[in-house]
Amino acid sequence: MIELRSDNAAGVAPDILAAIETANTGSALAYGGDELTAHLQDVVRAVFEHPTARVFPVTSGTAANALALSAATPPWGAVLCHPTAHIIGAEGGATSLLSGGAVMQGVGGEHALIAPEQLRAALEAVRWGDPHESQPSVLSLTLPSDHGTLYRLEQVSELTAIAREHEMRVHVDGARIANAVAALGCSPADLTWRAGVDVLSLGATKNGAMSAEAIVAFDERVADELVYRTKRSGHVTSKLRFQSAQVAAYLTDGLWLRLATHANDRMRELVAELETLASYGVRLQEHADVNMAWAAMPAPALDAAAEAGVLFYRMAPEVARLVTSWQTSAEEVVEAAAIFRDAVTRAG
Amino acid sequence: MIELRSDNAAGVAPDILAAIETANTGSALAYGGDELTAHLQDVVRAVFEHPTARVFPVTSGTAANALALSAATPPWGAVLCHPTAHIIGAEGGATSLLSGGAVMQGVGGEHALIAPEQLRAALEAVRWGDPHESQPSVLSLTLPSDHGTLYRLEQVSELTAIAREHEMRVHVDGARIANAVAALGCSPADLTWRAGVDVLSLGATKNGAMSAEAIVAFDERVADELVYRTKRSGHVTSKLRFQSAQVAAYLTDGLWLRLATHANDRMRELVAELETLASYGVRLQEHADVNMAWAAMPAPALDAAAEAGVLFYRMAPEVARLVTSWQTSAEEVVEAAAIFRDAVTRAG
Amino acid sequence: MIELRSDNAAGVAPDILAAIETANTGSALAYGGDELTAHLQDVVRAVFEHPTARVFPVTSGTAANALALSAATPPWGAVLCHPTAHIIGAEGGATSLLSGGAVMQGVGGEHALIAPEQLRAALEAVRWGDPHESQPSVLSLTLPSDHGTLYRLEQVSELTAIAREHEMRVHVDGARIANAVAALGCSPADLTWRAGVDVLSLGATKNGAMSAEAIVAFDERVADELVYRTKRSGHVTSKLRFQSAQVAAYLTDGLWLRLATHANDRMRELVAELETLASYGVRLQEHADVNMAWAAMPAPALDAAAEAGVLFYRMAPEVARLVTSWQTSAEEVVEAAAIFRDAVTRAG
Amino acid sequence: MIELRSDNAAGVAPDILAAIETANTGSALAYGGDELTAHLQDVVRAVFEHPTARVFPVTSGTAANALALSAATPPWGAVLCHPTAHIIGAEGGATSLLSGGAVMQGVGGEHALIAPEQLRAALEAVRWGDPHESQPSVLSLTLPSDHGTLYRLEQVSELTAIAREHEMRVHVDGARIANAVAALGCSPADLTWRAGVDVLSLGATKNGAMSAEAIVAFDERVADELVYRTKRSGHVTSKLRFQSAQVAAYLTDGLWLRLATHANDRMRELVAELETLASYGVRLQEHADVNMAWAAMPAPALDAAAEAGVLFYRMAPEVARLVTSWQTSAEEVVEAAAIFRDAVTRAG
Repeated sequence: MIELRSDNAAGVAPDILAAIETANTGSALAYGGDELTAHLQDVVRAVFEHPTARVFPVTSGTAANALALSAATPPWGAVLCHPTAHIIGAEGGATSLLSGGAVMQGVGGEHALIAPEQLRAALEAVRWGDPHESQPSVLSLTLPSDHGTLYRLEQVSELTAIAREHEMRVHVDGARIANAVAALGCSPADLTWRAGVDVLSLGATKNGAMSAEAIVAFDERVADELVYRTKRSGHVTSKLRFQSAQVAAYLTDGLWLRLATHANDRMRELVAELETLASYGVRLQEHADVNMAWAAMPAPALDAAAEAGVLFYRMAPEVARLVTSWQTSAEEVVEAAAIFRDAVTRAG
Repeated sequence: MIELRSDNAAGVAPDILAAIETANTGSALAYGGDELTAHLQDVVRAVFEHPTARVFPVTSGTAANALALSAATPPWGAVLCHPTAHIIGAEGGATSLLSGGAVMQGVGGEHALIAPEQLRAALEAVRWGDPHESQPSVLSLTLPSDHGTLYRLEQVSELTAIAREHEMRVHVDGARIANAVAALGCSPADLTWRAGVDVLSLGATKNGAMSAEAIVAFDERVADELVYRTKRSGHVTSKLRFQSAQVAAYLTDGLWLRLATHANDRMRELVAELETLASYGVRLQEHADVNMAWAAMPAPALDAAAEAGVLFYRMAPEVARLVTSWQTSAEEVVEAAAIFRDAVTRAG
Repeated sequence: MIELRSDNAAGVAPDILAAIETANTGSALAYGGDELTAHLQDVVRAVFEHPTARVFPVTSGTAANALALSAATPPWGAVLCHPTAHIIGAEGGATSLLSGGAVMQGVGGEHALIAPEQLRAALEAVRWGDPHESQPSVLSLTLPSDHGTLYRLEQVSELTAIAREHEMRVHVDGARIANAVAALGCSPADLTWRAGVDVLSLGATKNGAMSAEAIVAFDERVADELVYRTKRSGHVTSKLRFQSAQVAAYLTDGLWLRLATHANDRMRELVAELETLASYGVRLQEHADVNMAWAAMPAPALDAAAEAGVLFYRMAPEVARLVTSWQTSAEEVVEAAAIFRDAVTRAG
Repeated sequence: MIELRSDNAAGVAPDILAAIETANTGSALAYGGDELTAHLQDVVRAVFEHPTARVFPVTSGTAANALALSAATPPWGAVLCHPTAHIIGAEGGATSLLSGGAVMQGVGGEHALIAPEQLRAALEAVRWGDPHESQPSVLSLTLPSDHGTLYRLEQVSELTAIAREHEMRVHVDGARIANAVAALGCSPADLTWRAGVDVLSLGATKNGAMSAEAIVAFDERVADELVYRTKRSGHVTSKLRFQSAQVAAYLTDGLWLRLATHANDRMRELVAELETLASYGVRLQEHADVNMAWAAMPAPALDAAAEAGVLFYRMAPEVARLVTSWQTSAEEVVEAAAIFRDAVTRAG
């Protein structure tokens, strides 16, 4: 079986597991009062080149998103995001729960990316200050998007500038932020706070960690709230050193970018193979900017590929979502490509 | 330094870490769709001798408590617990948040245990069906209590029977339930569902796991709600297999009880030593039924012991909370006892 | 000035005010323990021909909607409604607040009415039982719609039948339900529970009452929850007899339908006049089924009409929303029509 | 029957009803965009001698309290109040709901009044900044108390000063604030913002209004939040002019104080009579500072008085709560006194 369903299905990267084992020495104060959590704080400030950024390790991406957003919006706010965003369709209403009733509103755009003109139009239609209407309070960018596409730096800046005109805050759902940083070749600071981002859900689990994510708050008031919001939602583990150790190792010496580059490279190889199958009806729905592709091909070909051992999610009868991870090997990509080739040529 | 602050400060037990490493093989469906989570389900039913119990691994005790309670109470309910309970004083209002506004109400009793007559009196004073008054809906027993004391089996049954007369559900905060089962020498089933318990917060982290707890629901409707409540509060990790593997290993072949017995034994040894110091003003505030003691002694003695390297929490100027763990060695107990002896004799 | 902004701007109908004055006799038990509230209960059961319907008077339409929905959905549910519905865009997220986090999702259709095929498609795309996705739990029909259009009886039944296939409940936002019943000439029972409706927001304020609305629950479990939900959201007035007296008078001897028929008739007269102005660019965006019209005409004409003393809301530069009420006189309609005629002929 | 159960059982005072009728002229913008609401704003600022106070009319005391508190506390806060306060025991958890999970904590003191030393002790025991513990954020004073007693001005100032040391806000539950102002003979300003109060629940219903209360916010940030919080909880009536007209009339030309003085006087007369019955075992549990008395007497005497037509609440087998209102006549007091005299002399 070749795992292309989700990078969530991958295991824990050896360096991360080693960090856990190293952390398992002696005793340490619970709930973040330990040295490893203090160290992580330093690591985050260094990596993001931000002197006052604060980090909150949590154990799921939904927790990171919903907590970050709940600290950035008033309960009567509206979080604007792309209709394909995880926060609006795949987190069971978590942000509405943890924020005390804030709502999500979709703002469209091609390639699963919010279009600046659509954001502007949405904000111009708002009756600001009228309590009948949920007040747009946060712009949430999924980066990379749930369709595997990427905003470029200047697009992020353009969108955050529009949000800023209306005194909105900006959140980035960075469940795969390492893949974005690696693909864009930019600095983490440039893609986040320097581009106008206030709070980041920094994913690590999909890219090799074991149930460890982090919220990185560049805005102090958001951070102040997170002290309480993380605890009262049950999102401060007692042995926090084990989450902190993972995230610190992940961000140290470029491990996160090496792992992400590996995944991105495998996807580039897979996509190159799929593109040779265009004459058989194989088509990528979006440019695969990182480690994910949505590939359209005839349904019988998808059936055949699945039977031959490729694991993937079926987003529509003729659409497969393919995701590589830090764990996907070059050999697996070669094998998967061969299976797809075989499937489409037989189906054709 | 000798760690007696909290069993939360201990590390991960070798057998649990081994289970994590073993789980780190190949890929697995995320969010609980993996084989290890399915296996945990079987383990829990076997250990608790309950054919339909359902288990939900989470990563903190606050999450376990607040989620279990939110699934057991309507939003207009009141959860009755001892005034010393963690849920009323040390979880930042988590249950009120996750339940949509339910309140906690204290019911007293000596030794940090709810007294049946006080529970009866509280329930008799309720205006049942009157929406002005939060309606008692769940009885939550902390077992063992936050002062290290234990209900006996028949006490649990007596309390649950009173709750049942008013159609209330019963929750057990079992952050240290293994220590209770080990100390009482009863079966897990006898202490829980056979005694009238509907839902259990099954602690594992304090007793050797790494940020892994579980909710065990004996009541099907509670379980049905937990499917949604765990996810939408961000409490289903994507790589859930790593939490499931820990809890399964913990409950297998009696590991949980061996670890707990170790901790209980160390506390018994420490208490025996402290009891020899009665003439110096050392006094246990409660009988240490499990791995925790609240010890009163002159403040200067506590200062001295702290300086000499014993780590403990100061609950009052003359009261130390002492907690042993699976990791506390017999040598450490001997050393701690010697330090305390030295401290009180000098202070005297 | 001729008031066509909203039926909310009208005053209290004389018969309703008389009922208030009559209720102001002697003392009465607070919080609904009075005889007038008991009488209202009987009136509602008689008018709706339902032996166990239960009524909860409240003081705003937002309260009626959000409370009814909160009692009909689990917190992880999604309420499906038309994108133009008041509950999704004009109540400040009230349902998300009072339900503990449920979300609103739009299902489209022409004429501000949900299209059955769109409802079916939306429900077929749901991953039922998957906690990542808010689970559709309630279908909310706005009747009449916020654009002044009406479902026919068989359309209501068709939609509720689709909802029922997925075990969803059905709510009607009947802020102007009297106008609907009057226009359709059906029985209140036929339009509600006989057509599959579980809970109704029965508007009265827009149609002559003074801050009095009612929730009518045909589903017993919804009613059981409302006992608590109304109180704990502050929506049980202490002198409830004054709200109950209004709603009872309103529903007695057909007063509600007489008032609504008056408003509907005035709109029919106004629309007839506007239709004669088609050659000047006057166009109704939807058929005016009740007492509301969305009328398009050149912007300068709207400017002129406003200056000449017609009060209306501007939904777009070239669109006016016109609403008649129980208080609008035939003379006012004649005058308004003349003003519009003058405005468009001058602007033309 | 002589009504002494609650001032909530009284009707609407003639002057208030007249104000409603006067308000029922022509049309007016909904949701507070009317002239009467603007006028009320002016009236409140004049009566409270505060240039920026803002008023929010609502329709129940629970709404006033829960909304005021939700705007004054963060969701992780604790509201400190006397254990007898309405907000902790008689509002169904409304504040926990509307605040997103804040908790109520009791602080004791004799005569149903918080004792400064108990408040100090409670605050000194808090682990400030520790998210495990709900952080005291608001001090709520019930004025007069639910037992009919009153803080003196200097007591209010002492308590608010203590709260201020910890950057807490101060709320007054003034369901009967008119009775307090009338009894103390102070200015409304002296009893509220000049004494350190940030937000007031200004009751009117118990003292002659018809489902009309108001929140008066002296703190601008509290007021800013209330704009949204009132709407999204369904607490802005569409025909708000009818609530505003009541509260404005109530506060104009001292009507509120005349009505309250009437009620207070009747209670003073009743109490004077009851005090002559001390030898028969009649005893007042607290000094009746306003229009309420808790009177202890033999149970058979209470039975007899109830049978003879006095309506009152039985707080215990031998305790009656007696409340006079603006509607209670001097003759009714004489009659009630005679009945009690007869009852105790026979029972004796």
